[in-house]
Amino acid sequence: MTDEHGASGEAARQRQVDREALVDLLGALAYAELTACLRMAADAQRAPDIRVQVALARMATVELGHYEQLAARLADLGVDPEVAMQPFVAAISAFHDRTTPRDWLEGLVKAYVGDGIGRDFYREVSAHLDPEDAALVQQVLSDTGQDDFVVEAVTAAVQADPALSGRLALWGRRLVGEAIAQAQYVAVERDALAALIVGGGTRTGLDLAELGRMFSRLTEAHSARMQRLGMSS
Amino acid sequence: MTDEHGASGEAARQRQVDREALVDLLGALAYAELTACLRMAADAQRAPDIRVQVALARMATVELGHYEQLAARLADLGVDPEVAMQPFVAAISAFHDRTTPRDWLEGLVKAYVGDGIGRDFYREVSAHLDPEDAALVQQVLSDTGQDDFVVEAVTAAVQADPALSGRLALWGRRLVGEAIAQAQYVAVERDALAALIVGGGTRTGLDLAELGRMFSRLTEAHSARMQRLGMSS
Repeated sequence: MTDEHGASGEAARQRQVDREALVDLLGALAYAELTACLRMAADAQRAPDIRVQVALARMATVELGHYEQLAARLADLGVDPEVAMQPFVAAISAFHDRTTPRDWLEGLVKAYVGDGIGRDFYREVSAHLDPEDAALVQQVLSDTGQDDFVVEAVTAAVQADPALSGRLALWGRRLVGEAIAQAQYVAVERDALAALIVGGGTRTGLDLAELGRMFSRLTEAHSARMQRLGMSS
Repeated sequence: MTDEHGASGEAARQRQVDREALVDLLGALAYAELTACLRMAADAQRAPDIRVQVALARMATVELGHYEQLAARLADLGVDPEVAMQPFVAAISAFHDRTTPRDWLEGLVKAYVGDGIGRDFYREVSAHLDPEDAALVQQVLSDTGQDDFVVEAVTAAVQADPALSGRLALWGRRLVGEAIAQAQYVAVERDALAALIVGGGTRTGLDLAELGRMFSRLTEAHSARMQRLGMSS
């Protein structure tokens, strides 16, 4: 009997840790979507072309829709979305502060690259979740439908001024570098979350090697996107 | 026969002028909604409180929804929304440049006041449109559902720091003053549009007295809103 109690106590503790990791994940994604929405819209203001403003505003709206879905799931779990987001405000804000676009083209590349990395990340992580949460994360995977527009606009700008290519390629590298740096800070501080993300489960703790492999898959997908913009990464 | 031809030629010319005024109206409203969306989101970034960020992001999303409806109607009319918006870019951008909030509270008051004046204006103008366009304008009249939140947040901030009241009241006056100034520039340049708005029809030309009465009704409604924030206007 004592053994059984001990085992069920362990299972309950485990569920609790899993739940904490899930709340962390939803909180981090929710704040990432909310700030992506606001930053994109702010960057759009500087675009000289109304069509670019509209494209970025639409992307921003889709991001807010994702935020709403994630916040609703947190509320379902009985967690105040604000409380769940709070631990990630510093890292996500630092990412944006360190990658403030100097002009609207950098803003456009940031929206495209950020949106793409976000979707790759959702794809990675949804494999390790319960069916219900996996379905939610799959849902927010839907792209914003503006990718073709961004590729066209950036390609046209680079054709008109080929010197832009090098600067924007460097900018793309910086975006992904800063994103990984901030993600690593978070992974170190939120062990259970990181373990959930790489699929080790919270039982096994953080698998740094698997985390590294995930970052390398995300970076490869990023390179493919930069190539679509006509740039080496 | 000549008389009949003359009359029908006059009627065709009149329809053409009406259509131009309508395209102007939809173009001006569309660009106003688009920029309101982008500026609100940009202002939200500076809010220290996640709830304020979410409220402003939601208001911004509703504005973009209005933009999409207006742009779709322009496309129905066979007009490129960008072309229809272009004549109003200068005045609307000037309004925003002259009313850049110094902090998130001014941003919140601007969102509340701007949203409110926008809705009052839609109400005024929908009376003078064809049923189909009146229905569209009525549709975008729906409020953003965030008014109560804004009133609460501003009231709480003023209670915590009563000195804010005077500054925000002044800010409200400036917002409405700048809005009317830019609207008057537009009215002078786009005679048919102004005539359509005040309901004189394009036949009778711009009725300056009626335009003045409309501005005074908008200003009164603005005062009522500022009082709801606990401020004299």
